[in-house]
Amino acid sequence: MKASQFLISTLRDAPADAEVVSHKLMMRAGFIKKLGAGVYTYMPMGLRVIRKVEAIVREEMNRAGAIECTMPVVQPGDLWRETGRFDKMGEELLRFKDRHDNDFVIQPTSEEVVTDIARQDFRSYKQLPKNLYQIQTKFRDERRPRFGLMRGREFIMKDAYSFDKDADGAKASYQNMAQAYRRIFDRFGLNYRAVAADSGAIGGDLSEEFQVIAATGEDAIVYCPESDYAANIEKAEALAPTQARPAASQPMQVTPTPGKSTCADVAELLNVPLQSTVKSLVLATDVLDEAGAVKGSEVWLLLVRGDHDMNEVKVGKVPGLNQGFRFATEEEIVDHFGTRPGYLGPINTRKPVRLVVDRDVAVMADWICGANEVDAHITGVNWGRDLPEPEVVADIRNIVEGDLSPCGKGKLAIERGIEIGHVFYLGTKYSKAMNATFLDVNGKTQFFEMGCYGIGVTRLPAAAIEQNHDERGMIWPESIAPFTVVICPIGMDRSEAVKAEATKLYETLLAAGVDVILDDRGERPGVMFADWELIGVPHRVVLSDRGIQAGECEYQFRRDAEAQKLPLAGMDAWLLEKLGR
Amino acid sequence: MKASQFLISTLRDAPADAEVVSHKLMMRAGFIKKLGAGVYTYMPMGLRVIRKVEAIVREEMNRAGAIECTMPVVQPGDLWRETGRFDKMGEELLRFKDRHDNDFVIQPTSEEVVTDIARQDFRSYKQLPKNLYQIQTKFRDERRPRFGLMRGREFIMKDAYSFDKDADGAKASYQNMAQAYRRIFDRFGLNYRAVAADSGAIGGDLSEEFQVIAATGEDAIVYCPESDYAANIEKAEALAPTQARPAASQPMQVTPTPGKSTCADVAELLNVPLQSTVKSLVLATDVLDEAGAVKGSEVWLLLVRGDHDMNEVKVGKVPGLNQGFRFATEEEIVDHFGTRPGYLGPINTRKPVRLVVDRDVAVMADWICGANEVDAHITGVNWGRDLPEPEVVADIRNIVEGDLSPCGKGKLAIERGIEIGHVFYLGTKYSKAMNATFLDVNGKTQFFEMGCYGIGVTRLPAAAIEQNHDERGMIWPESIAPFTVVICPIGMDRSEAVKAEATKLYETLLAAGVDVILDDRGERPGVMFADWELIGVPHRVVLSDRGIQAGECEYQFRRDAEAQKLPLAGMDAWLLEKLGR
Repeated sequence: MKASQFLISTLRDAPADAEVVSHKLMMRAGFIKKLGAGVYTYMPMGLRVIRKVEAIVREEMNRAGAIECTMPVVQPGDLWRETGRFDKMGEELLRFKDRHDNDFVIQPTSEEVVTDIARQDFRSYKQLPKNLYQIQTKFRDERRPRFGLMRGREFIMKDAYSFDKDADGAKASYQNMAQAYRRIFDRFGLNYRAVAADSGAIGGDLSEEFQVIAATGEDAIVYCPESDYAANIEKAEALAPTQARPAASQPMQVTPTPGKSTCADVAELLNVPLQSTVKSLVLATDVLDEAGAVKGSEVWLLLVRGDHDMNEVKVGKVPGLNQGFRFATEEEIVDHFGTRPGYLGPINTRKPVRLVVDRDVAVMADWICGANEVDAHITGVNWGRDLPEPEVVADIRNIVEGDLSPCGKGKLAIERGIEIGHVFYLGTKYSKAMNATFLDVNGKTQFFEMGCYGIGVTRLPAAAIEQNHDERGMIWPESIAPFTVVICPIGMDRSEAVKAEATKLYETLLAAGVDVILDDRGERPGVMFADWELIGVPHRVVLSDRGIQAGECEYQFRRDAEAQKLPLAGMDAWLLEKLGR
Repeated sequence: MKASQFLISTLRDAPADAEVVSHKLMMRAGFIKKLGAGVYTYMPMGLRVIRKVEAIVREEMNRAGAIECTMPVVQPGDLWRETGRFDKMGEELLRFKDRHDNDFVIQPTSEEVVTDIARQDFRSYKQLPKNLYQIQTKFRDERRPRFGLMRGREFIMKDAYSFDKDADGAKASYQNMAQAYRRIFDRFGLNYRAVAADSGAIGGDLSEEFQVIAATGEDAIVYCPESDYAANIEKAEALAPTQARPAASQPMQVTPTPGKSTCADVAELLNVPLQSTVKSLVLATDVLDEAGAVKGSEVWLLLVRGDHDMNEVKVGKVPGLNQGFRFATEEEIVDHFGTRPGYLGPINTRKPVRLVVDRDVAVMADWICGANEVDAHITGVNWGRDLPEPEVVADIRNIVEGDLSPCGKGKLAIERGIEIGHVFYLGTKYSKAMNATFLDVNGKTQFFEMGCYGIGVTRLPAAAIEQNHDERGMIWPESIAPFTVVICPIGMDRSEAVKAEATKLYETLLAAGVDVILDDRGERPGVMFADWELIGVPHRVVLSDRGIQAGECEYQFRRDAEAQKLPLAGMDAWLLEKLGR
């Protein structure tokens, strides 16, 4: 490609609404152009990256035996009613009516459509397993779209769906996809982790996220540096404490803590470690009558150590809370505790509450909690003496840095990640809802066992930039760079020698199948260099009259601080070898 | 590809709602699956064809210097308001509101978005010309979607938009695209014609349609077998008659024609050629007051020869009718002619009407028209004697087979076609509406000169089938066939020899880059053959135990009536040579 025949449109400054570095750099480098909130045109330079991502995904999905199709962007609402998602999904699901007043949605995913295909086309177990995928435009009407392609409304996703005749088959299909994802993300050349993820209501352990590691990531990833254990923070288990509970050594007493409503403030005031305080969190569950109407509520008190945070996913697995819960209203709190949040605790509540105690709290002695009166806490609290031994003890907290790893091999560390892939064992959730069956070997109808597998195709370039950039711009791994090599001839319009050498090198690389761009725009060297550093092309060759006279050219790898002078003769062979051609 | 790892899903019968052969065959062969009215999933077999179409389009667009981008499917209504299309376009434009109550549309084309890009990014004449294209999902909410991919609601279109600094440049860009389209359609291997098309309100001659010739086509194409003249029927000019008007030889008289309200009936009753009758068509134009409200109407009488049909596009160019016209209401007709349609004519109208006379009618003598009274016509009518010489004479009729060609080289023929591409010079229509300007060589702002260029990517396979099929199924040209070669081994599961030979041939072809499928499903020969003839793969090789023992295999080209026996040894080389490898 010659730059004069391409569209290069760089900006000195990013627009004010670009908050994260990938969004800023993509806007500045002309990779994307904003059309509306969360809706972007993929400009030629950005599209090149997206197409390379797509090609790698497609190649590895095909290699893994998945079959490509394309499902409609616009899908009938009636199909979505079969699974209940038409009504149950929130406002993210964009619904509209066509000219004949029929309901439609714009696909955020395609479980309904693909299950509809399966129930029509996969009639016998002999046709299974099958895995259908598409790389297609999706739409989610995010309340607050932001961060450019990171959380847009319209985006491209690769979504795959596997159909198996039984759970074992489905798990094998799942593992096949998980392996394919590793191959895909390896080829992207990014630092990523496959982390265990919570599989929600389905149960089981078969859900993994693929996270690109980046300090700016929205997700917290827990991992063990000594093993391959990794999980997202929702999922990562806090091991049961191994130490026994110490004996009580302090009397229980109420202590004034005026204005100190957080554990940190109380610990500071009393000059004790944060670890000796206990945090009270109040949840509620609705009690329904036989007709399903809310007739009242039950109030729950959850206790976690002062330096820990509650994990809502884990809480959602506690019996009694696993059908849905909410934070208690202030009215419910005052009604049950006799005071407002900030000074709550399990002792002397006004009305009985249901207690759930984190495993770390259950082994504490002489702890501190709210006194259920304003500006007061209780110190020296002990289980079995000041209040009954806890009945419901569970892992309900987030991991913190330094916790022991469930793998038994070390202490956990935490880093930030950007989710760009997810593999998920679905079981029969959709096939049952849509009555999607096949005939098994005995001629009996069975529900398909399903899995679903997503990759955020347009989010991936953003994640790559969050992980790989410097003050000059983006730094692309070779496999998904918009161009692999850029040739920058200085004064090409004035010097026949520069023009001839640049053209020769360009044509040699092109003929060898290298994705090379020749910057023949006639820009000044400073502009040229700044543009290509911003765009992040991995290899740059600079040709100039002076260099040619000295038999030299300049080469710079995008990650290097300095350019190196190399002999002009044989530069083509040197580069091809470097590129592994 | 091995068939067992692919999705082959053929049906014996097409669904009842499939009216045309391409729709029937695509449904039967499992190329598409209906999800809703005019909304289809592109199943794996169909998607292969679409991807090959896309690849050819992309390659030739790139070769022609166009630059690929991807514009959003969901576009803000406000941008569409700038050109007025948000309100002016009919119900085909799907409009909806997002969760924040903002207006959006789903793109039917992308003139607004691309013009918005140009006005931001193309600031100087030095950046021009530029041509941006995308291959992307489109949506048109057709009132009556039908014929499968021929007239769907969701479809894939390649749309390109050129930006030039002046009209000469725009015309060169247009010609460049017209040439690229010829290369594209040549590569598809279809019988097509590039035909001159009407360019509507823009004027000028720069609009061509690319029509795939098929008896089932919706469009009529006029062409000269002696030259390369071709035009769609809206556009094709009827030459001015060369003969002089004969002298009047009959008296004018009213003749009873009870119940004979058409020219054909009258000609039959009076035993005269249809060519001596004249057809009366009554149009109306609204007369507006200063505020733009309708304050009345003007009635027009158009006369064409009895064997001719009115051409609405040509009528729309007659001064006075070029701002829009409609058919007159029955009330307007009775008010002006004193009778109802069927017996109308230019003589003895009740009120004056504005007369427009086709060029062929202007040279008629002794003609027959309605008498403006029920059940009566007038014969022997002559210009200048019975009514004034016509003032407004124009070409307002459709060409008929046998008319002289405007090229001067022969007589015109008519065939049917399916429009699959359109190139169009737009001028400054969109750039002016959206105030899209650049700085010219003198530093003055100028509006972009634009062109737009479409190819119906998902319609093309349907058109290819309409043109190429037989009673057994589809017949694909090699360049866009879902597979180029199919190997059908008979009894592969029972015979090691068949399995070994089939696998060897498959792997040799695969290694040579041939798009080959090995049918290892274990189906009976009859089922296998019927499937692949339905799917229309161009080359089929059959291997059997008996054949292998005789050192033979069977080869059949899809268009051939019979298979031929060929030596098994060297079959791979023979096939590769046939495929030009």
